Amino acid sequence: METNPCNTPANVGFSISSKVSRTIKPDATLVDIKGVMVGGSEIIVIAGPCAVESREQLFETARAVKDGGARILRGGAFKPRSSPYNFQGLGEEGLKLLAEIRKETGLPVVTEVMDTRQVELVTGYTDMLQVGSRNMQNYPLLKEVGMSRKPVLLKRGMMATIEEFLLAAEYILNQGNEQVILCERGIRTFETSTRNTLDLSAVPMLKSLSHLPVIVDPSHGTGLRWMVPAMAKAAVAVGADGLIMEVHYKPEEAICDGYQSLSLNEFAQLMTDLKKIARAVGREIS
Amino acid sequence: METNPCNTPANVGFSISSKVSRTIKPDATLVDIKGVMVGGSEIIVIAGPCAVESREQLFETARAVKDGGARILRGGAFKPRSSPYNFQGLGEEGLKLLAEIRKETGLPVVTEVMDTRQVELVTGYTDMLQVGSRNMQNYPLLKEVGMSRKPVLLKRGMMATIEEFLLAAEYILNQGNEQVILCERGIRTFETSTRNTLDLSAVPMLKSLSHLPVIVDPSHGTGLRWMVPAMAKAAVAVGADGLIMEVHYKPEEAICDGYQSLSLNEFAQLMTDLKKIARAVGREIS
Amino acid sequence: METNPCNTPANVGFSISSKVSRTIKPDATLVDIKGVMVGGSEIIVIAGPCAVESREQLFETARAVKDGGARILRGGAFKPRSSPYNFQGLGEEGLKLLAEIRKETGLPVVTEVMDTRQVELVTGYTDMLQVGSRNMQNYPLLKEVGMSRKPVLLKRGMMATIEEFLLAAEYILNQGNEQVILCERGIRTFETSTRNTLDLSAVPMLKSLSHLPVIVDPSHGTGLRWMVPAMAKAAVAVGADGLIMEVHYKPEEAICDGYQSLSLNEFAQLMTDLKKIARAVGREIS
Amino acid sequence: METNPCNTPANVGFSISSKVSRTIKPDATLVDIKGVMVGGSEIIVIAGPCAVESREQLFETARAVKDGGARILRGGAFKPRSSPYNFQGLGEEGLKLLAEIRKETGLPVVTEVMDTRQVELVTGYTDMLQVGSRNMQNYPLLKEVGMSRKPVLLKRGMMATIEEFLLAAEYILNQGNEQVILCERGIRTFETSTRNTLDLSAVPMLKSLSHLPVIVDPSHGTGLRWMVPAMAKAAVAVGADGLIMEVHYKPEEAICDGYQSLSLNEFAQLMTDLKKIARAVGREIS
Repeated sequence: METNPCNTPANVGFSISSKVSRTIKPDATLVDIKGVMVGGSEIIVIAGPCAVESREQLFETARAVKDGGARILRGGAFKPRSSPYNFQGLGEEGLKLLAEIRKETGLPVVTEVMDTRQVELVTGYTDMLQVGSRNMQNYPLLKEVGMSRKPVLLKRGMMATIEEFLLAAEYILNQGNEQVILCERGIRTFETSTRNTLDLSAVPMLKSLSHLPVIVDPSHGTGLRWMVPAMAKAAVAVGADGLIMEVHYKPEEAICDGYQSLSLNEFAQLMTDLKKIARAVGREIS
Repeated sequence: METNPCNTPANVGFSISSKVSRTIKPDATLVDIKGVMVGGSEIIVIAGPCAVESREQLFETARAVKDGGARILRGGAFKPRSSPYNFQGLGEEGLKLLAEIRKETGLPVVTEVMDTRQVELVTGYTDMLQVGSRNMQNYPLLKEVGMSRKPVLLKRGMMATIEEFLLAAEYILNQGNEQVILCERGIRTFETSTRNTLDLSAVPMLKSLSHLPVIVDPSHGTGLRWMVPAMAKAAVAVGADGLIMEVHYKPEEAICDGYQSLSLNEFAQLMTDLKKIARAVGREIS
Repeated sequence: METNPCNTPANVGFSISSKVSRTIKPDATLVDIKGVMVGGSEIIVIAGPCAVESREQLFETARAVKDGGARILRGGAFKPRSSPYNFQGLGEEGLKLLAEIRKETGLPVVTEVMDTRQVELVTGYTDMLQVGSRNMQNYPLLKEVGMSRKPVLLKRGMMATIEEFLLAAEYILNQGNEQVILCERGIRTFETSTRNTLDLSAVPMLKSLSHLPVIVDPSHGTGLRWMVPAMAKAAVAVGADGLIMEVHYKPEEAICDGYQSLSLNEFAQLMTDLKKIARAVGREIS
Repeated sequence: METNPCNTPANVGFSISSKVSRTIKPDATLVDIKGVMVGGSEIIVIAGPCAVESREQLFETARAVKDGGARILRGGAFKPRSSPYNFQGLGEEGLKLLAEIRKETGLPVVTEVMDTRQVELVTGYTDMLQVGSRNMQNYPLLKEVGMSRKPVLLKRGMMATIEEFLLAAEYILNQGNEQVILCERGIRTFETSTRNTLDLSAVPMLKSLSHLPVIVDPSHGTGLRWMVPAMAKAAVAVGADGLIMEVHYKPEEAICDGYQSLSLNEFAQLMTDLKKIARAVGREIS
């Protein structure tokens, strides 16, 4: 009896000769986001609001996360939303606000790009391009960001295997761009008490198979503000090279994902706690 | 204790006031692909090769599936492949071959579009635009095909809930294009003996919630040629409005998905069997 | 890099030399439940209430399902319930009612056994022992029913792979009891609009790998009364050897699973429809 | 349109009035295993071989894990194996060896019980009864261990929701036995590079909902020896009250689960590392 010979989604799947493979390149890749290095001994924290909503919201949040120790600012200008009737982001107006606060704070900025036609525009305003979970297998987009010379933050699809995730990164490297950060952000399982199931075993697995840095998103991974600190600590302990977290100056008023955003005080407290874990595993958080 | 209030992926999710909802529009929508009507009492079979590989391969296969009773021809010119090193499709050359055999056979053609920048090009050569599983939540692409005036074949994401699937269709309808066919093509589960788990319960659920026609893809749903006939029969019995199946004139030589493609003889035999099931549920296959 | 060599749950997994394998025994096994043969050309319908609740409820339902064409009566006396505060079944009192109505109607009876210590008791009152989903890997129970001389209805665990399911059956055959029916009853996935996801591809897969008969439970597989008929038809079309369905004379008053139980009229109508599908696939329902 | 009102597996599900609920009993429960307290500030490590294979194997391993800082010894005498042809454990002979080494080392012993008929026997030789994943919803067994006066280690089913897990514990508490430890041991997902997906978010979720202590099993959770240390550290960081890990004096010769068992040296090294993480989160490992 013949069962499926092609559970792996491709005739040619991930192999040790892939460009993302640690066999080909044993040394860890350092990704350089305007001088902030991801993949070395320092654990890098990326923080900011889910979506750019207003000048006040973005600027107050950005200043506070910088004070707390974040090294990179996140904020969405183009938002992938399940329903067409949800807030879709401020678009270029949001990009301009990001560029303005970047100048003030000196924090590099990462923001999501969803459309091949937006890559050039977004590249002009930002320091790292994010490819979101829903676009992990949007191959034209992967090729397009691969042709840009910006670092790329690639989020794991919520039902992507480790192999598919690495092959998606391969699309980017194959265009000549090796500045790729992998991000575990929770997978979809049968469990419903959390928004997703954060798969922390993906961190050692990815770092074992690939030379690329790996970070963790406990905000989307849990969907629960009160659970973010515990999972952030676990992510540092398991060996992540960084964290990306949603922080909002007024979470209860957030248009998007407020229920999973840390307040400014919660973020500051968490950073203090994370430094202790980082030291316990022989790393540091600035 | 607070659990996640947002398991539903959106603050505003599917509701009875959605444009796809049967509550808003109780009568079934008929999708008209150059005169072939999907969503009525006739069960429509779409067949053809996974990818357009060559003139001979496409033309021989197309003529045979027409003889067997297929009403629409499928064939991929742009292929989403997990690995960048796999065959990526013939591109515009493939579109031209599709247009040529369409003229000869009179069969309308459906082919996948993966990039917003390709929509205009693909629209020029084809009768229905397919949005594949990996792009079910590619919102810029959904909006773009929504602005075209072509019917759209929307495949369920392999991790998409019924609600997310309907909201993806809502993006298309919300642009003014109501000519949308929903396609169940297998979801990802823990089971590995089949490529995906074909969720036939999605058919009555979707038809209950929405006025849009629903078809089934047993080729991708199982990934196993020998299992396609059994699942195709079940799909007709469960109430599907159509089937889309991979057929190849030489499956053992196919570049792509040959292990799940029916041979020409297998297809002809299956069509005979399906007609009996269709009659048993009060429908017909031409 | 070493990945897990043991995704298969056992060092020695299912193989073609297993006692359940069709390679070892190419001919289909017929299971004989007091003269009702499962696994031949006739499709056998098992019907009755989820739980035995009262004499009136059981007897009225039993008489009606017999009139409708059911060949075997189902009814639970010991109920596995997620919460200890839910109705746990009537116990031996329920078994006595089952034996009484069996005598009146002549229908053989199947009921669940949950505890090794109950096997002897249940064997005395029933014609087939059911091992439920939650006990599919309760190995002492599998061995115990394997040592009884009664036919066994083994339900697939809601998280069990095809391989694990066959290995669970192997435990029974290995004790010398080959009278085993396999039952697909829905697996657990991320989808929440149905109670489980009925995996109809399991039917051709199991029948291909094994000589044992395979039946389908659309009641637990969907958890939705209105969806049971569509999925029952699909199960017949896909090649199932039988169906097991929950029927209740007053579904709205059922203590247990009323929302997925057919009324007596719905059952009678469905049986009429199923006969047409059975004929269309070359089989019959009495 | 009606969707399933009963996705929760029971009409009466987990509620704040359940005996396991922290609402009913805000203070953490301490489980006392012959003087070793689980649920307080000390993080308890349980270690030992998957299965008791021989006197030498058990004794050498037990002495070493004691030296390394383990507070409780694990070892299986009755083994639930997917295939009937795999090693099923030494049975009572194994229990006797466990009792003997318990006497020598002073380590309390935990071992699995699979059959209601074994509970009395196992109780006589051991200090804590383990109910394994496959038996998490074996209700007669849960009631039986609930009637014993021994502490119970309850492992989460590999596809059990948090709610179902707590309701399974409720069966034990409802018999009057409140000495229950919950154990996260990995759930089943689509991912195949690890044996299971260790769901560390279950730890804060369970501790938030319930007063019972929660431990983590990184051995079964990953199925990969080299990944156990990283996940053990993450488990301590996330707030687990303990760990249970497989250790073998000669992993490469283990009959069962050797690929996921730590060697004696690996275990000793890991204990040193875990102490640092414990201190970083304000707890200790003896």
